[in-house]
Amino acid sequence: MINEENSTVIEGRNAVREAFTSGRDVEKLFVQDGLSDGPVKSIVREAKKHDTIIKFVKKDRLDQLSQTGAHQGVIAYVAAYNYGTMEDIFALAEKKGEAPFILLLDGIEDPHNLGAIIRTANLAGAHGVIVPKNRAVGLTATVAKTSAGALNYTPVVKVTNLVRTMEELKKRGMWFVCADMDGEVMYKLSLTGPMGLVIGNEGSGVSRLVKEACDMTAAIPMKGDIDSLNASVAAGVLAFEIVRQRMS
Amino acid sequence: MINEENSTVIEGRNAVREAFTSGRDVEKLFVQDGLSDGPVKSIVREAKKHDTIIKFVKKDRLDQLSQTGAHQGVIAYVAAYNYGTMEDIFALAEKKGEAPFILLLDGIEDPHNLGAIIRTANLAGAHGVIVPKNRAVGLTATVAKTSAGALNYTPVVKVTNLVRTMEELKKRGMWFVCADMDGEVMYKLSLTGPMGLVIGNEGSGVSRLVKEACDMTAAIPMKGDIDSLNASVAAGVLAFEIVRQRMS
Repeated sequence: MINEENSTVIEGRNAVREAFTSGRDVEKLFVQDGLSDGPVKSIVREAKKHDTIIKFVKKDRLDQLSQTGAHQGVIAYVAAYNYGTMEDIFALAEKKGEAPFILLLDGIEDPHNLGAIIRTANLAGAHGVIVPKNRAVGLTATVAKTSAGALNYTPVVKVTNLVRTMEELKKRGMWFVCADMDGEVMYKLSLTGPMGLVIGNEGSGVSRLVKEACDMTAAIPMKGDIDSLNASVAAGVLAFEIVRQRMS
Repeated sequence: MINEENSTVIEGRNAVREAFTSGRDVEKLFVQDGLSDGPVKSIVREAKKHDTIIKFVKKDRLDQLSQTGAHQGVIAYVAAYNYGTMEDIFALAEKKGEAPFILLLDGIEDPHNLGAIIRTANLAGAHGVIVPKNRAVGLTATVAKTSAGALNYTPVVKVTNLVRTMEELKKRGMWFVCADMDGEVMYKLSLTGPMGLVIGNEGSGVSRLVKEACDMTAAIPMKGDIDSLNASVAAGVLAFEIVRQRMS
């Protein structure tokens, strides 16, 4: 689904070409059917080079999508912010001389939660955040705003399959702890060393396969009457338990 | 200010009378000028008994305020949820046989933050939340929803002057720790015993007079590039440090 909340709309040939050349993450390109002049051809070529989804549509459809009325036959949907790479995360850890500390989000849906978690990741000294491609909110303007600037410092990496990524990271020495109410009270676990902290979906928690791929399951001690903490608060409490153990 | 976000609108004689008799917190009552029949008189009497603000207005104004078109001369604005009392908090602590643990919010403005903090307070085993009358968001429907049901269990008490309330609570044996980046790292403080945790405003933090009234200042260790955690995440991290110290 492409909509305004999830991306920035870029219209017109120059603006769209610049989006590609400046390395922005173009999620989808709409091109007017039948146009085949030089500038349009070069934009389509760029899009193919970047594996961007391309849709050829009638002019009416572009007029409908256009916010400026001046699309010149091309409209691109660009992620509000760029994703990072796994190497960005490991490079950051190495630069700081620290064991890698990563937050993995198994399907966070609320952009405010995602933004607050990226903010928390930055301040807890995590070196990056990993999100799955599907089942998750993108790096929208709301996420960027709620992250309070953290998106400029903390790489967010999008992966196709969270379990496969975890298996690959295990080969690089990472351990994984997932947040779950049925786990061991977090104070009793040893959470130092190269650590990935897995936070589940707001409603359904960590999914079964991801949970099975984790080495440990950590519970926040619950002293109340209701079910669970807000996902970004839970992420904060767990991330700072890792900080505490790393400091002591 | 009365608006839909801050309260529920109740219209018609039976509904408004029931709001009073069921003990709901009626914030304001609009009565049609000139009406003086029995039912209206009895509603006005109830309102005076509860110190509710009463406004006598022309029928036109009521018609304008009405959402149902069937106000029968009376419209009441009712807080979405009721506030608790200080005695509710102490009674809850006593019932559980625990030292009182209270969260004090010095001007939280975002209803999502207030809701998330009430949710956290409940799950961290706090016995109540104290908010100042002015400079703060009320118990709106958004707050109730974000609290995920915690508002049904954890009393939220509205006070006129936070500093004065803290002085009174000190006489009852409470200690106060305020959240501030310039404080001592929280792990080094002793946060057991009857404890009030003070969380500041999203932008400006804890105000000067409130900070001066605190016994301790606790800092969350900051490992990142940006300024500060989201207020509800900070409240969660600090509240669960108190839980950790109480458990160990």
